Amino acid sequence: MDQLELIQELARENSARIVFLIMDGLGGIPVTGQGKTELELALRPNLDRLAREGVTGLLDPIAPGITPGSGPAHLALFGYDPVRYNIGRGVLEALGIDFPLEPGDVAIRINFCTVDQSGVVTDRRAGRISSDQCQALAEELDRIQVPGVKIFVRAVKEHRAAMVIRGPGLGSALNDTDPQLEGKKPHPLAAGDDPSKKTVEITNRFLEQAGRVLAKHHPANMLLLRGFAAFHRYPSFAELYKLKAAAIAQYPMYKGLARMLGMEILPVGDKLPNLMDVLEAQFKNFTFFYVHVKKTDSSGEDGDWARKLEVIEAVDELIPRVVALQPEVIVVTGDHSTPAALKGHSWHPLPVLIWSRTARPDEVSEFTERACARGGLGRLPSTSLMPLALAHALKLEKFGA
Amino acid sequence: MDQLELIQELARENSARIVFLIMDGLGGIPVTGQGKTELELALRPNLDRLAREGVTGLLDPIAPGITPGSGPAHLALFGYDPVRYNIGRGVLEALGIDFPLEPGDVAIRINFCTVDQSGVVTDRRAGRISSDQCQALAEELDRIQVPGVKIFVRAVKEHRAAMVIRGPGLGSALNDTDPQLEGKKPHPLAAGDDPSKKTVEITNRFLEQAGRVLAKHHPANMLLLRGFAAFHRYPSFAELYKLKAAAIAQYPMYKGLARMLGMEILPVGDKLPNLMDVLEAQFKNFTFFYVHVKKTDSSGEDGDWARKLEVIEAVDELIPRVVALQPEVIVVTGDHSTPAALKGHSWHPLPVLIWSRTARPDEVSEFTERACARGGLGRLPSTSLMPLALAHALKLEKFGA
Repeated sequence: MDQLELIQELARENSARIVFLIMDGLGGIPVTGQGKTELELALRPNLDRLAREGVTGLLDPIAPGITPGSGPAHLALFGYDPVRYNIGRGVLEALGIDFPLEPGDVAIRINFCTVDQSGVVTDRRAGRISSDQCQALAEELDRIQVPGVKIFVRAVKEHRAAMVIRGPGLGSALNDTDPQLEGKKPHPLAAGDDPSKKTVEITNRFLEQAGRVLAKHHPANMLLLRGFAAFHRYPSFAELYKLKAAAIAQYPMYKGLARMLGMEILPVGDKLPNLMDVLEAQFKNFTFFYVHVKKTDSSGEDGDWARKLEVIEAVDELIPRVVALQPEVIVVTGDHSTPAALKGHSWHPLPVLIWSRTARPDEVSEFTERACARGGLGRLPSTSLMPLALAHALKLEKFGA
Repeated sequence: MDQLELIQELARENSARIVFLIMDGLGGIPVTGQGKTELELALRPNLDRLAREGVTGLLDPIAPGITPGSGPAHLALFGYDPVRYNIGRGVLEALGIDFPLEPGDVAIRINFCTVDQSGVVTDRRAGRISSDQCQALAEELDRIQVPGVKIFVRAVKEHRAAMVIRGPGLGSALNDTDPQLEGKKPHPLAAGDDPSKKTVEITNRFLEQAGRVLAKHHPANMLLLRGFAAFHRYPSFAELYKLKAAAIAQYPMYKGLARMLGMEILPVGDKLPNLMDVLEAQFKNFTFFYVHVKKTDSSGEDGDWARKLEVIEAVDELIPRVVALQPEVIVVTGDHSTPAALKGHSWHPLPVLIWSRTARPDEVSEFTERACARGGLGRLPSTSLMPLALAHALKLEKFGA
């Protein structure tokens, strides 16, 4: 029996509420020249209060040393083995626009691009065309037909779109056509296994027609494909944990992932405090809230430690609104680290705090990476967090007699 | 997918250099009457500097409570599951003398011994005969022929030699003949499984002839066999980690193990500072260096805490030479604990430090067992160390989108 089966067996429903406040890319390493991480430099009286009253520790999203993408990092946070339940970029993209994927679908991310007469990519983002243009192009491409399958193309944003191939026996072991560098031609498609040969053939037929359609739409006169991925049904939060779960997230991919796990996606404005407005308005209607803050990650990716610090401070100011709702359990952590000093995701473990009446407080009174390393939770894989949150909400029965 | 497969998939080559400085048997428990471990009692300003600037923790070689031999402890350090990739004493011995083992070979350690007329062992080490005598005896025994197989006998050192049986379908589930105590006869051989019955028969024929050959060579008038082990090919550091790896080790077994994993064995003198001479001379030629210090272990085995302390202090003095080379990652740890108070290997977790520009420093400023227990790495299995070292050297791609 794996962990998820065990938890499913032990989970019971009660009215206790759990709030998961996820600051994307929260963890850091010392900012160059400052000797402290973004989190250590930030003013965080409210987070420190939760750390002082609760129990703290460090989380490994996948395993020590492994830098995760956002998909696997979130799956781990939600208790799913991120290696076993690996999820592809194409599926995340399609879920992010609310595309009703069905098991067996192969989903792919499209980037519109510019190519010259010889087919060499001169702009991998087609001058970042407007979302309106993207919408018009997606509608044209959606009309392409390939016998034996149904192909869907949907606009995402600017130069990004999603494509879904639906049909029997489709593999998804295909390489990206994106050459990653301008001045090169797109990579030809190759199949990594037998069922994927059919997918290669279908996709090549689609690309041929798409090339003709797009020829007249310079700068978006070609497209690149990334992240071929098959969609499988995931066991839902309701099935596994007996939770009525809601997601309050502002970015498509996170909404898509939450929807895939059976959470209800609550509409929310695009300002940070809007997250709290929705939490307050919907607090009586669910027993689990996934609240996602994106900009700790994007500022880290940009190497902008000062902005990351500001986002952390802005989140800290929202904490009293969460506490005022009196949830039984508040969890604050991230999905992975995104140190500004590294301008990207990293493998460093994440600080985590669990605040609950049933928590056994430790000696940690600051919510920082360094302080949480001495916390009562120790160093745990992220997949341990859901069982702990459920336990603190008294939602898990005893194992064995 | 197991950890090694995941790492292999994510590993990429770059020019960053990793130095693994392994003090064999480093960990201790308080020296009787002193209240502190050998490491705590030692002057270690340079190790403390690395601990202060880097990140620290504790490693379990196999699992909490398990005392490892040197073979499994090293395999774990190098990232191989030490239970799955278990390695026998005979194989370690043969590799230590550079014997070109082939998959399927069964390797055995020989100890020359003294027996009386009735076959009772009176000296398990044959008065520690000279290495020259050992060489002469090995040459005589190497001429023994048993139909259907090829038998090799090679001198190791003093009373120790290695034997290899090469042939089809040989099992290696055989007991040691060494009775461990003087005043007893060697144990008869027994097979633990079907393929090993053949090995028992062949070995008995060999022993019969060996007894006749050795009869005239008192005190080395018999031999004891230990550690029957089959050789399997291991995935190499180059295959798994895309590292160009070198070993700087002064003792045969460690060289043998490193060679088995595809490391290049660099010739080195037998003084401690010679390790650094070779590291400096070869630093440009490799991306991974395994530097092995033996005497922390042998002094611990002898129960000589003062000598162990001296070895630690001598290693500490070498640290600035490592730092001056500016490797991207320095790891300092041991393979297992060898507390002088216990005069042998033990299960106690080991202090470890990772020093790197990409490390997130913790609050630990001393390289001791007690201080590292509060470190930012927490308590990890030794198998996590290679992924971490690779990550800190930016040699691992992101997992998933």
